[in-house]
Amino acid sequence: MPSPRTALVISAHAADFVWRCGGAIALHAEMGCQVTVVCLSFGERGESAKLWKQPGMTLQKVKDTRRAEAERAAAALGVHDLIAFDLGDYPLEMTRDDKNHLVDVMRAVQPDFMLSHSQYDPYNSDHMYTTQVTLECRSTAQAWGHNPGQKILGAPQLYMFEPHQTEQMGWKPDTFLDITPVWEKKRAAIECMAGQEHLWDFYTRVAQNRANHFQRNSGGQAGGRASKYAEGFQSVFPRTVDVL
Amino acid sequence: MPSPRTALVISAHAADFVWRCGGAIALHAEMGCQVTVVCLSFGERGESAKLWKQPGMTLQKVKDTRRAEAERAAAALGVHDLIAFDLGDYPLEMTRDDKNHLVDVMRAVQPDFMLSHSQYDPYNSDHMYTTQVTLECRSTAQAWGHNPGQKILGAPQLYMFEPHQTEQMGWKPDTFLDITPVWEKKRAAIECMAGQEHLWDFYTRVAQNRANHFQRNSGGQAGGRASKYAEGFQSVFPRTVDVL
Amino acid sequence: MPSPRTALVISAHAADFVWRCGGAIALHAEMGCQVTVVCLSFGERGESAKLWKQPGMTLQKVKDTRRAEAERAAAALGVHDLIAFDLGDYPLEMTRDDKNHLVDVMRAVQPDFMLSHSQYDPYNSDHMYTTQVTLECRSTAQAWGHNPGQKILGAPQLYMFEPHQTEQMGWKPDTFLDITPVWEKKRAAIECMAGQEHLWDFYTRVAQNRANHFQRNSGGQAGGRASKYAEGFQSVFPRTVDVL
Amino acid sequence: MPSPRTALVISAHAADFVWRCGGAIALHAEMGCQVTVVCLSFGERGESAKLWKQPGMTLQKVKDTRRAEAERAAAALGVHDLIAFDLGDYPLEMTRDDKNHLVDVMRAVQPDFMLSHSQYDPYNSDHMYTTQVTLECRSTAQAWGHNPGQKILGAPQLYMFEPHQTEQMGWKPDTFLDITPVWEKKRAAIECMAGQEHLWDFYTRVAQNRANHFQRNSGGQAGGRASKYAEGFQSVFPRTVDVL
Amino acid sequence: MPSPRTALVISAHAADFVWRCGGAIALHAEMGCQVTVVCLSFGERGESAKLWKQPGMTLQKVKDTRRAEAERAAAALGVHDLIAFDLGDYPLEMTRDDKNHLVDVMRAVQPDFMLSHSQYDPYNSDHMYTTQVTLECRSTAQAWGHNPGQKILGAPQLYMFEPHQTEQMGWKPDTFLDITPVWEKKRAAIECMAGQEHLWDFYTRVAQNRANHFQRNSGGQAGGRASKYAEGFQSVFPRTVDVL
Amino acid sequence: MPSPRTALVISAHAADFVWRCGGAIALHAEMGCQVTVVCLSFGERGESAKLWKQPGMTLQKVKDTRRAEAERAAAALGVHDLIAFDLGDYPLEMTRDDKNHLVDVMRAVQPDFMLSHSQYDPYNSDHMYTTQVTLECRSTAQAWGHNPGQKILGAPQLYMFEPHQTEQMGWKPDTFLDITPVWEKKRAAIECMAGQEHLWDFYTRVAQNRANHFQRNSGGQAGGRASKYAEGFQSVFPRTVDVL
Repeated sequence: MPSPRTALVISAHAADFVWRCGGAIALHAEMGCQVTVVCLSFGERGESAKLWKQPGMTLQKVKDTRRAEAERAAAALGVHDLIAFDLGDYPLEMTRDDKNHLVDVMRAVQPDFMLSHSQYDPYNSDHMYTTQVTLECRSTAQAWGHNPGQKILGAPQLYMFEPHQTEQMGWKPDTFLDITPVWEKKRAAIECMAGQEHLWDFYTRVAQNRANHFQRNSGGQAGGRASKYAEGFQSVFPRTVDVL
Repeated sequence: MPSPRTALVISAHAADFVWRCGGAIALHAEMGCQVTVVCLSFGERGESAKLWKQPGMTLQKVKDTRRAEAERAAAALGVHDLIAFDLGDYPLEMTRDDKNHLVDVMRAVQPDFMLSHSQYDPYNSDHMYTTQVTLECRSTAQAWGHNPGQKILGAPQLYMFEPHQTEQMGWKPDTFLDITPVWEKKRAAIECMAGQEHLWDFYTRVAQNRANHFQRNSGGQAGGRASKYAEGFQSVFPRTVDVL
Repeated sequence: MPSPRTALVISAHAADFVWRCGGAIALHAEMGCQVTVVCLSFGERGESAKLWKQPGMTLQKVKDTRRAEAERAAAALGVHDLIAFDLGDYPLEMTRDDKNHLVDVMRAVQPDFMLSHSQYDPYNSDHMYTTQVTLECRSTAQAWGHNPGQKILGAPQLYMFEPHQTEQMGWKPDTFLDITPVWEKKRAAIECMAGQEHLWDFYTRVAQNRANHFQRNSGGQAGGRASKYAEGFQSVFPRTVDVL
Repeated sequence: MPSPRTALVISAHAADFVWRCGGAIALHAEMGCQVTVVCLSFGERGESAKLWKQPGMTLQKVKDTRRAEAERAAAALGVHDLIAFDLGDYPLEMTRDDKNHLVDVMRAVQPDFMLSHSQYDPYNSDHMYTTQVTLECRSTAQAWGHNPGQKILGAPQLYMFEPHQTEQMGWKPDTFLDITPVWEKKRAAIECMAGQEHLWDFYTRVAQNRANHFQRNSGGQAGGRASKYAEGFQSVFPRTVDVL
Repeated sequence: MPSPRTALVISAHAADFVWRCGGAIALHAEMGCQVTVVCLSFGERGESAKLWKQPGMTLQKVKDTRRAEAERAAAALGVHDLIAFDLGDYPLEMTRDDKNHLVDVMRAVQPDFMLSHSQYDPYNSDHMYTTQVTLECRSTAQAWGHNPGQKILGAPQLYMFEPHQTEQMGWKPDTFLDITPVWEKKRAAIECMAGQEHLWDFYTRVAQNRANHFQRNSGGQAGGRASKYAEGFQSVFPRTVDVL
Repeated sequence: MPSPRTALVISAHAADFVWRCGGAIALHAEMGCQVTVVCLSFGERGESAKLWKQPGMTLQKVKDTRRAEAERAAAALGVHDLIAFDLGDYPLEMTRDDKNHLVDVMRAVQPDFMLSHSQYDPYNSDHMYTTQVTLECRSTAQAWGHNPGQKILGAPQLYMFEPHQTEQMGWKPDTFLDITPVWEKKRAAIECMAGQEHLWDFYTRVAQNRANHFQRNSGGQAGGRASKYAEGFQSVFPRTVDVL
């Protein structure tokens, strides 16, 4: 029996993996792919406004709440392993040890592909920092001399998932994934994010409009393949294929 | 029995389809894909320096020679149909009738994918004009009201094949195709281009170095998949997929 | 009494002005701005798939239907003047006389600002051609020696309205306009487009998500100004201001 | 009585706020806007060549001189508050505490808009570092969980002021501000910079030529609005408006 | 005795060659280089506002005046040959015959380098059209089969000279030329342009500020080489050298 | 006797200077230019896969081997001074002291030009980090107040040499250098890199194909100057010249 496929999502904050690639996670999980999600932080300082408006709120309570939400969402999506690095946010900062931890995860998971943020984001320096570090750690994980004897990382694609304001980030999707079969799971995961209810419908609409783009790119005015929900991704690296 | 796949190559001059996507043609032809090649011109004025240096040369002789070379190359590659528009080159200019002819070909072929030049080329305005017209004709071929009753075109990918000086054209490959199995055919087709012998080894080296890129992108320092010859392509449109 | 403000929308096809800037039209009309809309074509060949699928359809019937829809939509939005150039679509082509006609309109309207398509669109060469011609005609309309004695055009901003797949067009909005007060009018105009019902909800969702961007850019996590529907625009030219 | 408007300038070196946005400062100060200027360094190492050529010069003397110049210039412009972080230059480096200090200033000032350097500058890494940190601190200042209980920052525009060689920095102004009414103040502030006299006339010419651009963009060949001195700015974020 | 060097300037309107590369012309003329200037139009419609405001003005009078000004300016600069194509402006349009005329000039001049406009200009479609046609004609002039027997064109660099609002055109200079020795000639040529007196000082300031850039790029804070007037150019093609 | 010219190469890993600018080094060394090479690391962890596959390999052995290879290659090329910073790779990290060391080297060498990596490289964060630090140190080395009394750095060009997959790095060469006269030395240096034998022929083919580009850019179809081996470079800064 061949090994299952594996994927690695690197999410700056606890909810990013839900909004931005929850469909991809659920879809691949259903196909038997083991999807590991790393949350570098819980988004406890900068993405938890609703919680902070409650009286008596503390950083620990916010983190606990966000962690619980992320775990429920991960369960809803069929995440194989949810790893919380708990590094703090706004600003997210990683020491060399933190980076080595991420390298360890990359080597342990040996992902067939990875997912993370866009490379530019003037609204959110945590997001672009995460992708920068992901690329740096991908290089380290490929180095034979880093922890010699370990199995080194291959050359997994890095897909950049959809940021909040795509055009401001210079993000251009080159891949649309039909997530219609798993939409209910993604919506369920979205609804785990109690603190950001204002985004539930926003990202539902995103999925619906990306489905329009899926259909259009799969067949234009001749029809195309119907899709009700989709996600878009931008590839960092070229693909290698045997057929166009 | 399902219909065979089809592809359409739109080549500004008679030899472009050989240097730039001869491997893709031969590979897909071997897989049963019917590849139609449109040569908008023979490159008779601007890509036939060697012929013009012969005494007594005429435009007709150059065109005849270039046509014969293109036909031999097409045969070597397994081209399904070679269509010469014979529109002249440097500058290549297309009337509305010429464009409608190309629309007719697109609709007749119903290609699963198309191949043409890069979108920018300061050295060669025929090349970028060809891609501009290809996109315009793709729009027309998709229009229900153009020759109503005909089967309209779907939304085939347009792959831009490798130009001569990639960086000057802003061309960035996102897809590497392993053409090792058909290299001998591509080299044979290349050698049909008697008038441009100085490019035979140039494009052989291109294929060898693209194979290095293929291998690196398929597995990095972990090995990757060995390839001896490859071609690179840049996609104009996003892909629609069911799995990443 | 000062002259009312004026605006000029240049729309490649009959429906573009509705989807892409219907809110801006209705909002400015309510403020007393006279908005002229030029439809260069009816989109009769390439944007009327549903009509062409009806038995016995002819080009004239499609044009009549599209014209009627555009007129109803214009009325719903409060368009001051709807001018149909009837030039045909896919491909849209303009002679020098057609361009001079557009120059005449620009000079007659003397718009405070203009609206048209994005500068790049690989899916739709009519769209980018329209913007190219708009810029060319703006230059001509500014020339003292073109029809000497006429009042020349000033330097109106050209806003590029939202294309269908923003990221593929390299379109980046720099201006979000709150259209909440006139949303019902825009929706009513949208529903005039009987032949493209599949886009009604798509562009409703676009407006809702742009409202999220409006709110976020007006105040971030501090709240921002609530908006339920918005439109985005990209400016071609710099603004000149007396206060930042 | 409503609160006055506020603005925050973040200047890598002591003189940048003078050359690059002195007009904007003086103009807004005259309108009652309270403009705070942060100088991260005095430019004591890298922008004080003339002083270092004097015999017996020391770092402290350079800093004292530059501080005095900056204070005189700030007074000439009507700066509300000049805050010297004194972090050193070439290279400018900021610890997390330094960044938190800047976050504190952002929250205390609650600026309606901010001004800082271009995002790219191969000649001057202090400049681009300043903008990178400004964006990072803007994110932190917006985070409810950073120093909970403080009033968080809204979403102020960040205008990038004019760098020394605009085209090399990829800087493209989208906003021209007429500073004619306050030109004398800007020139007076410029002349406070005794150590960089070679730039006095350079930046005077910049202001004069930007006035030409102001006039051209406000009316083209139809006249436009006369301006004798202007400044240009590039916006990082989209605007939110109720009228085009 | 070797042949003198030659250069070819292709100017959309009669005055462009003066403002944008008058210094380069005069400098090379003094070195014995034969500089041919092609004016595709006189700028009679769109760049002669002052003339058109005079009573009784006619197109012919404007053209005569502009021609005379251009001839005086050319004489002041030491132009070898001034060729007026008289094609009209705003919009400038070229037939295939017009283009062949330009090809003939290129082949006759055999320029060591060429100068023309920027590749993008939303304010002025004549300017970008000129560069597009220049590149197209360069290709044709290189084609052995175009007028066989003529000496074909080599591969001269195309320098794009400075447009009016550099950043809006995406123009980035990579070459600064010191024109101090010939400044008086350039100023004299500028003053031949009686109809555009408002630009005399504008372009003088441009030259002074480019001299600052020349000095800075030639030596930074270490001094650099003093220059009082300079011009900037962007190269389309790579250079080929024997020493860095 | 005038001072010899000097150049400074800043190489992230021990072999980069060989593949990417070995020809430039050898060519300038033959002309009497003193070329200093800084290797920030030996590439011991990430570019020594072949060594690590040997049994009993240790980091020190890899470094010793790589150092020896680099020294032999430097000798073959005629390097004036090879300075190993030995900072480690993947990731390469530099403290302020390390950067000051590089500043010291820049000031001591006083290079007429410098060579380093491309500014973007998603495959290799060491490479882009090296160029970022090089630009930062160039700024510091130009600062009069850094180690006052030392001779400051002028404004040397920074040429970015060819990365492994040029298009993925956004690298666009603007300068082709003919290295035919020193090819044997470059090939000899390449063959010193025993651990990366798979790249010997790759970079030989790169040099051959760049020679084709050299010839084409020096004369197009008219012939151009023959070259058998060349290298390409992208300039960061504009040139300052007295003749075009």
